[in-house]
Amino acid sequence: MKKIAVDAMGGDNAPQALVEGVNQAIRDFDDIEIVLYGDETKIKDYLTATERVSIVHTEEKIDSDDEPARAIRRKKQASMVLAAKDVKAGDVDAMLSAGNTGALLAAGFFIVGRIKGVERPGLMSTLPTVDGRGYDMLDLGANAENTPEHLHQYALMGSYYAENVRGIQKPRVGLLNNGTEASKGDPLRKETYQLLSEDESIHFVGNVEARDLMDGVADVVVADGFTGNAVLKTMEGTAFGILKQLKQAIATGNWKAKLGAFLLKDRLKSLKQTLDFSDVGGAVLFGLQAPVVKTHGSSDAKAVYSTIRQVRTMLETDVIGKSVKELSKKD
Amino acid sequence: MKKIAVDAMGGDNAPQALVEGVNQAIRDFDDIEIVLYGDETKIKDYLTATERVSIVHTEEKIDSDDEPARAIRRKKQASMVLAAKDVKAGDVDAMLSAGNTGALLAAGFFIVGRIKGVERPGLMSTLPTVDGRGYDMLDLGANAENTPEHLHQYALMGSYYAENVRGIQKPRVGLLNNGTEASKGDPLRKETYQLLSEDESIHFVGNVEARDLMDGVADVVVADGFTGNAVLKTMEGTAFGILKQLKQAIATGNWKAKLGAFLLKDRLKSLKQTLDFSDVGGAVLFGLQAPVVKTHGSSDAKAVYSTIRQVRTMLETDVIGKSVKELSKKD
Repeated sequence: MKKIAVDAMGGDNAPQALVEGVNQAIRDFDDIEIVLYGDETKIKDYLTATERVSIVHTEEKIDSDDEPARAIRRKKQASMVLAAKDVKAGDVDAMLSAGNTGALLAAGFFIVGRIKGVERPGLMSTLPTVDGRGYDMLDLGANAENTPEHLHQYALMGSYYAENVRGIQKPRVGLLNNGTEASKGDPLRKETYQLLSEDESIHFVGNVEARDLMDGVADVVVADGFTGNAVLKTMEGTAFGILKQLKQAIATGNWKAKLGAFLLKDRLKSLKQTLDFSDVGGAVLFGLQAPVVKTHGSSDAKAVYSTIRQVRTMLETDVIGKSVKELSKKD
Repeated sequence: MKKIAVDAMGGDNAPQALVEGVNQAIRDFDDIEIVLYGDETKIKDYLTATERVSIVHTEEKIDSDDEPARAIRRKKQASMVLAAKDVKAGDVDAMLSAGNTGALLAAGFFIVGRIKGVERPGLMSTLPTVDGRGYDMLDLGANAENTPEHLHQYALMGSYYAENVRGIQKPRVGLLNNGTEASKGDPLRKETYQLLSEDESIHFVGNVEARDLMDGVADVVVADGFTGNAVLKTMEGTAFGILKQLKQAIATGNWKAKLGAFLLKDRLKSLKQTLDFSDVGGAVLFGLQAPVVKTHGSSDAKAVYSTIRQVRTMLETDVIGKSVKELSKKD
């Protein structure tokens, strides 16, 4: 029986969305146990699951505007910190939080700890493609600077994930670059290109450009944390900007535009959901000793449920265990 | 009378779109003279303007798949090369091309030449915001690597352009970074932040994030060429990806969706035009001795006309002359 720690106090809809997501997960998956960290009284207001669920009570929590590293050090009884400590101690197998991303990165790095041989864990998320298949991209911003060796490890970790969790055989790995030719980029890209070409354990398909990501040019996309973060935020900003402009165009349009928009309403709504790039719901901090997963701050019960399902698959396929073994070997 | 060189042979719609854009510009602006470079017979098929226009005949041209630096060296009689040489010689005041971007960068750099004191010219374009005001961003990919000093110069050049050509008083300059706090980013960002804070000749508003660009957080956005290129291509890819998904959603939708789409057609079309990020039509290679402007490869006559108007404004306001003066002083 796998045990998953859930920080009940992080995110905009805490603890309700977290607890309701847990209720649903306990109902659907009879092979997991969940430990909720947070205010017991508030949690019990929403908790309907009765078996395989327990509460670790604490009144302290990390807020969204807390300075990450300091919060982790000072708020020793915070729900997120207690959960991370229990992961470290082996009392639980994985954790998820909808709280402060920086604090979760710090908790993962300083409390849960890195895989031996992984210098810089990277933030990974499955991002949307037009065909709905998606691709895994990392690092999305856990680091401001990376070396070719870090990027090489991201290629390996992304491949393990795509293969084990998403079931993609021989995932195609692309290096995000400013052109597709092998000679493109700065020294970081050129050296990484070399490392990836020489590693026969991955299926490297060469450089990929940001304009082709949504067309699914690769199953795993490797970037340094600075560029990955800029790309992710550009996707988010562009998607929301377009939806705003569409709204404006309709609002200032004639009756035809307004009627058209009314008839298209359902389709536009589902489009908006597909395009919620900001929902790095289920962003994995990859390179740690156990799965540490961030679900978006605005997650509802359904998103929390999906993230628990994702963590369950990660535990079932032992993707982290395999990474630990492989990456320690390469060191 | 200002003289503008137009490479008639570059781009998907050459020479027709180029020559027709010139016809219109000659009609509307009586204070410019245009020199067309390319095949005289083909140009004359479309040329209706009769005054203030001349042709420099050549049969050689640079193709879109030519290797840039080599093409510039070997195709000495190419239309783009001849135009650049005439800019250098002072026979014309500026040039525009819809051809091979890399070759135009190389022609600008090696033939037209840099402003004394500007180490690395940057590619700048005015990108769309939701409110239609736009912002100027550079470097969009002329360089794969930049130093804090380069980024400082981009801030100055972007400010001159926004103020002189776009008429924005005290343009707000933002540094693209992975967070808005002053302490964010890698050493390149931190050192650039310092340089921009200390320069009282610009109106530095601090770090800006890619997700806020379309909301118009700054009038000038400064980035290294690698990140700027990734951001531009992400905008393009995301915009086209969304339009593709919208099309799919409509195609697989019911009669309501299809009727809605039909009624919204004009609005969706105008949205698509606003969002044509790939149309860095009028991307200026800033930091050269004279205006060298790239208009998109797929430009039609209207886009060519707009770019000629933009070059005319650059010459009228002497934005390059001012840059030469100011940047040489700072050196």
